[in-house]
Amino acid sequence: MSQGCVVGVDIGGTKIAAGIVDSQGQVLTHQRFPMVAHSGPDAGLAAVESAIQAALAKKSPGCHPRGIGICSPGPLDPNSGVIINPPNLSCWRDFPLADKVSKKHDLPVKVENDANAAALAEARWGAGRGYHNVFYTCIGTGIGTGIIFDGVIYHGRTGTAGEGGHMGIDPAGPRCGCGKRGCIEALASGPAIARRAQQKVRAGAVSKLTSMAGGDPATITSYMVGQAAAAGDAIAQDVVKETLDLLGYWLSNIIDLLEPDVIVLGGGVATMLVPYIDDLRRRWSGACVNPWPDRIPVVVARYGEEAGIAGAAALLA
Amino acid sequence: MSQGCVVGVDIGGTKIAAGIVDSQGQVLTHQRFPMVAHSGPDAGLAAVESAIQAALAKKSPGCHPRGIGICSPGPLDPNSGVIINPPNLSCWRDFPLADKVSKKHDLPVKVENDANAAALAEARWGAGRGYHNVFYTCIGTGIGTGIIFDGVIYHGRTGTAGEGGHMGIDPAGPRCGCGKRGCIEALASGPAIARRAQQKVRAGAVSKLTSMAGGDPATITSYMVGQAAAAGDAIAQDVVKETLDLLGYWLSNIIDLLEPDVIVLGGGVATMLVPYIDDLRRRWSGACVNPWPDRIPVVVARYGEEAGIAGAAALLA
Repeated sequence: MSQGCVVGVDIGGTKIAAGIVDSQGQVLTHQRFPMVAHSGPDAGLAAVESAIQAALAKKSPGCHPRGIGICSPGPLDPNSGVIINPPNLSCWRDFPLADKVSKKHDLPVKVENDANAAALAEARWGAGRGYHNVFYTCIGTGIGTGIIFDGVIYHGRTGTAGEGGHMGIDPAGPRCGCGKRGCIEALASGPAIARRAQQKVRAGAVSKLTSMAGGDPATITSYMVGQAAAAGDAIAQDVVKETLDLLGYWLSNIIDLLEPDVIVLGGGVATMLVPYIDDLRRRWSGACVNPWPDRIPVVVARYGEEAGIAGAAALLA
Repeated sequence: MSQGCVVGVDIGGTKIAAGIVDSQGQVLTHQRFPMVAHSGPDAGLAAVESAIQAALAKKSPGCHPRGIGICSPGPLDPNSGVIINPPNLSCWRDFPLADKVSKKHDLPVKVENDANAAALAEARWGAGRGYHNVFYTCIGTGIGTGIIFDGVIYHGRTGTAGEGGHMGIDPAGPRCGCGKRGCIEALASGPAIARRAQQKVRAGAVSKLTSMAGGDPATITSYMVGQAAAAGDAIAQDVVKETLDLLGYWLSNIIDLLEPDVIVLGGGVATMLVPYIDDLRRRWSGACVNPWPDRIPVVVARYGEEAGIAGAAALLA
């Protein structure tokens, strides 16, 4: 019996992940390859092509791919499938990725921003399933967000909406990689959490983090902060508390503007914050003008490492 | 010939405005009445009823009302037409306003948050006409916002989305009336602008504002700040510049999250800022991660004082 499946491709600045995803959102295969992100456009395309071929080679015989979904760092145009000018993928400038791949395989191809795609996978198959309005955020090395209304990615004017990680909550705050000051990404992503912990330890705070980092504060990570906080370290707990304050304030803004039906938390930092979800909810509830912020469910994403592949596949589902 | 028209009712904390609006969004009549916002529910309803009767008495003979639209401070439930618990309207708690008015007149009645309603009037008949995604903000005594997607008010989970005036951009900022710190309303509404100017003058700054306020800094208004800035007063210009910085930062957040097709500016403060719209755009363009923020049109609202009546009527249009 023929079984619908989709090829999902997740392009990053240094690697490509690709796999086969079934119609229930199960990631059946998952492989990783290097990405040549800063060579010419053909080399970049060849890397994507290799990943697709490798994924296709692993599919079961009864699985007939209905299409290829690709997620990539933006900016890109999800309607035309053109990659515009991502800083992390200098190989492509106004590059018609969807057309190039589609011609090669004679299959429909969709291209989407990675956080939007992951949001769609959560709404369709994951923790956001059954909700009309889904606000998804992936908190990790950066903070990505995606908005799903009634099963459809909210794109805005040109497809570059949903950049909630670059909402600023402090005009005098640290400068984000995007150039703006005080983006939540610059305040509460993994590197930002690590940096705040490093500063405290460098300033002389006594903490388990020092020994966990082998005596070198520069190697403290957000993961270590989570471990140390769970083990009762007061400095790490302070850093977690500050992070919850920042994320709670930011999420209160999201709730007051969008009042989503559900908030889906993904990414490594979100995983670390799972024990503190009630604290986070208390913070945003205290800040919202919305009368029922504490009734908004907050759930942990279904997809972790495979969010990109599942998201890419969801574009064709 | 029968001509479609709608009764629009705009309930505020101290007054009710009511009028007749035609199918092109022309406000044909406009009257004001006192609102008894803090007596019992029947007295509040009677005040609304008087305003409706007065509006109906002024309609032309050929105009047959198709319904009654009412806008009110929230929170309220736009689906059921129930007023929940607005601080400025203590007369009503879980009050089924739409049902009560509808039974009296045997006409469809819709109830909506005032900024959402005004946003709809702009999208349907005003400065946002022809755009899919409209972000409307009314900057005056407070900062209200409304989001229109494809001609429909975006309501969120329970109808209380779109509270963009309570997006915070400074967790250490001044406390807003809503209780949160650093809401854009607490930073850049008319009273916030006046307060910043008053502080400068009290601190000894030499400014025309002192004489404009008759020597009493406490009576400086945002309107005076606009006048003085236009006349070249350096202190007033500083206050305007700070206001543009704050609004530009806030709007960069809106653009990065929603990437609207158009931004519609209404309210007295927005009118004061019309000469500075290019400066405002420069500020948000500098802050956005969105690649084309400078291409988003920003337009001045069609409706001023009549925004509430037109908005209420738009609910039935």
